[in-house]
Amino acid sequence: MTRRRLHLNAFLMNTGHHEASWRLPESDPYAHVELDHYVRLARTAERGTFDSLFLADGPQLWSNLAQRPASALEPLTLLTALATATEHIGLIATASTSYNSPYNLARKFASLDIISGGRAGWNIVTTAGAEAARNFGLDAEPAHAERYARAAEFLDVALKLWDSWEDDAIVADKAAGVWGDDTKIHPPRHRGKYFGVEGALNVPRSPQGYPLLVQAGSSKDGKSFAARYAEAVFTAQQTLEDAQDFYADLKARTVAAGRNPDHIKVLPGIVPVIGSTEAEARANEQVLEDHIVYTHGVDRLEGLLQLPSGTLELDGQLPADLPPESSIEGAKSRYTLVVELARRERLTVRQLIGRLGGGRGHLTFTGTPEQVADAVEEWFTLGAADGFNIMPAVLPSGLETFVDHVVPLLRARGLLREEYGPRQTLRARYGLPRPANQHVSPAAGSPALARV
Amino acid sequence: MTRRRLHLNAFLMNTGHHEASWRLPESDPYAHVELDHYVRLARTAERGTFDSLFLADGPQLWSNLAQRPASALEPLTLLTALATATEHIGLIATASTSYNSPYNLARKFASLDIISGGRAGWNIVTTAGAEAARNFGLDAEPAHAERYARAAEFLDVALKLWDSWEDDAIVADKAAGVWGDDTKIHPPRHRGKYFGVEGALNVPRSPQGYPLLVQAGSSKDGKSFAARYAEAVFTAQQTLEDAQDFYADLKARTVAAGRNPDHIKVLPGIVPVIGSTEAEARANEQVLEDHIVYTHGVDRLEGLLQLPSGTLELDGQLPADLPPESSIEGAKSRYTLVVELARRERLTVRQLIGRLGGGRGHLTFTGTPEQVADAVEEWFTLGAADGFNIMPAVLPSGLETFVDHVVPLLRARGLLREEYGPRQTLRARYGLPRPANQHVSPAAGSPALARV
Ligand SMILES: Cc1cc2nc3c(=O)[nH]c(=O)nc-3n(C[C@H](O)[C@H](O)[C@H](O)COP(=O)(O)O)c2cc1C
Ligand SMILES: Cc1cc2nc3c(=O)[nH]c(=O)nc-3n(C[C@H](O)[C@H](O)[C@H](O)COP(=O)(O)O)c2cc1C
Repeated sequence: MTRRRLHLNAFLMNTGHHEASWRLPESDPYAHVELDHYVRLARTAERGTFDSLFLADGPQLWSNLAQRPASALEPLTLLTALATATEHIGLIATASTSYNSPYNLARKFASLDIISGGRAGWNIVTTAGAEAARNFGLDAEPAHAERYARAAEFLDVALKLWDSWEDDAIVADKAAGVWGDDTKIHPPRHRGKYFGVEGALNVPRSPQGYPLLVQAGSSKDGKSFAARYAEAVFTAQQTLEDAQDFYADLKARTVAAGRNPDHIKVLPGIVPVIGSTEAEARANEQVLEDHIVYTHGVDRLEGLLQLPSGTLELDGQLPADLPPESSIEGAKSRYTLVVELARRERLTVRQLIGRLGGGRGHLTFTGTPEQVADAVEEWFTLGAADGFNIMPAVLPSGLETFVDHVVPLLRARGLLREEYGPRQTLRARYGLPRPANQHVSPAAGSPALARV
Repeated sequence: MTRRRLHLNAFLMNTGHHEASWRLPESDPYAHVELDHYVRLARTAERGTFDSLFLADGPQLWSNLAQRPASALEPLTLLTALATATEHIGLIATASTSYNSPYNLARKFASLDIISGGRAGWNIVTTAGAEAARNFGLDAEPAHAERYARAAEFLDVALKLWDSWEDDAIVADKAAGVWGDDTKIHPPRHRGKYFGVEGALNVPRSPQGYPLLVQAGSSKDGKSFAARYAEAVFTAQQTLEDAQDFYADLKARTVAAGRNPDHIKVLPGIVPVIGSTEAEARANEQVLEDHIVYTHGVDRLEGLLQLPSGTLELDGQLPADLPPESSIEGAKSRYTLVVELARRERLTVRQLIGRLGGGRGHLTFTGTPEQVADAVEEWFTLGAADGFNIMPAVLPSGLETFVDHVVPLLRARGLLREEYGPRQTLRARYGLPRPANQHVSPAAGSPALARV
């Protein structure tokens, strides 16, 4: 039996996940538009034999440009450029089911999958917030349940599109003058509540069949969606116990949805803040906190909690009478996580902002490389994680430190591959099978890839 | 005074523009999904100091897969990969105003412009045909005039989005903790007939300000649109006289729209079929015609002319009672070109299909390198063209022959640059100024680029 191995995903974001990272002397405040910055990060993650790297996204400009880099290259575009600069690592782009059309998006992912040799992944998001909605002709954000209903139909159509070519639809018989076999093309002919998509995709079935499906919703609807479609799940968890509950719950839901629980990989996000001693690690953390502009933090927290501007006092507690999660139409699970964190640890608004500054709700692991490796191993072996979403506070330095100092420990403990070996698809890296085409019976299907 | 120079654009398409090109022994019938094929073509065009390369597109699978490669990687994805493989050449992607949303598309082009160092161009199309419409929830294609009305509003919004950041909106003041200057962000707040777009783009203004705007509509609406927005125009013209008329008409319309006629470059498409002697060139052409499957050609011609299947006889003429252009909702000008070509030269259906096989309505120049260079020079100096859209019948060989044998002649005649020299934006290659931001008065605007 092969040993269970950790999966690592590098979550790349500008100068790092800490909101004040751009202010450090070492940071390039123009990193958001520097291809070279991202190429360097991608190659570092490849040196660390990560399974994948990932770009978050939302189709809106965050208000208050003063506070931090609030711009990002479109992820599918940036990942295509990174595909040509790397060889092994998976490339996961965020794209919204609320503000895209299935035909265009399915085609872009198929194209990236082909260009990268089967390394594309899609972080499926429904996109919270009215700002995004107003960029697409809507007055307000669609309700949470409505967004997830549209997401489910979007996925069904996208899967039909990706399966609209059988793997061997191209015949290429020059002598007979027959290029393709029309009987192996299966137009979706989809007419649903949200979408009408009649025809087949104009890109052949890609090396992976379709991109690795990733999801990060943690509300009830989010978890049902993940159980049905997702092959990897990102999640923000503050304690081992919460992470174990989430893990067990998601695996059980996956079984209930009729799927193999090993075919969904749970990846909590962690913000490693590393020093060669514990004291040095704490000092590194303190430098970051010292660079936070707290008035910005208050604005953002009021936004997340849907409170009128001016409600929160920096040295006070959160109000006692916050509304229940059910009344939140934005990111439900993030709301609850933040409120529970503040209540559990009796944090002032200032302390809460400091705690959120690093990972916006993700857990910060502060310590020596050994301590970080211990925590990773603990979560991995105690049923809280199949791997981790690594979210360095400062980039590129934080990823480099992780790869140079934590990765060797994980390898020595037999938790992480020593090298990539031959080229593989992203899905194979995550230990998942290539999906069959819905139009081909498993017996008839040839395991050999068409030449794409 | 600098001498007027030819602009050359390489129109890349699978194994070439001739419909039978894929059947030649030398051709790779999987070229449509081979990144290396396109990298090789892009580097060949760069060796020929072309201004740009171009990918056509439509969001639908052409029916009858048997007849020829009917699939294409999504152009913005493929061009992003080519951006990393080239240094100087412009990268023009086709995208539809009928089946995209302005926020997403404007952002993708801005991202490609940044990643390529200012080499992005957009071939703006309205997309004819019901097949495409049915992939986006519509039952039939919107009327021609309606598509152009939507295109105009799309452009207005996209231009607002690209100007939503002033060039110097990023302050990056680490000490003060101020990253961006919110007063230099200008949200579109657009509410029109087709689109509502409230907020600013989440990508800074790109090196070119926005991609080079290219257009290829030749109907009356198409030409008005081009006169208003386009900086380069692709067109299919069968005779020098028609090309001169089109050229004069478009320049006059551009003046009438209040623009400088030098700021719109007219590029007729030509299919060069080259041999070291005239006889060899004719023989090369004959080989291609011999590979045409005429029954496929009849199907396609009936589609273009909107005739019921089975109407046309291979050795007969076109019916005398074809409907007028005004009743065509698809590609109006292409319809007229084909009908006029058949009538002018009294072609049988078989002959017409042979003539269209190469360039689908574009002119084939068959001859020696000198003869092709002569024809190019004639059109260029007699007011029919500012340059050419080069559409090789067979790829990669046709582009290589053009670069190795015609380009040196054009250089020797002083019509084409000898080398690229320093890096420039695509717009600068076409001799056009960087557009000012609509929110900045010209006096205040600094000519220096922000560091993007
Ligand atoms: C690691 C991680 C990354 C995420 N990335 C994005 C993103 O890029 N875009 C986005 O709109 N939402 C993103 N989300 C938010 C989730 O998609 C989801 O909306 C959120 O967790 C709230 O869950 P719910 O929608 O089920 O309430 C991310 C969440 C996590 C945990
Ligand atoms: C060289 C050239 C390339 C074109 N490429 C595309 C294309 O990629 N996608 C598309 O939908 N139309 C394309 N067209 C069609 C034009 O956009 C336009 O629809 C057509 O010329 C008919 O003009 P009209 O729409 O003004 O009637 C192209 C036309 C030419 C001449």
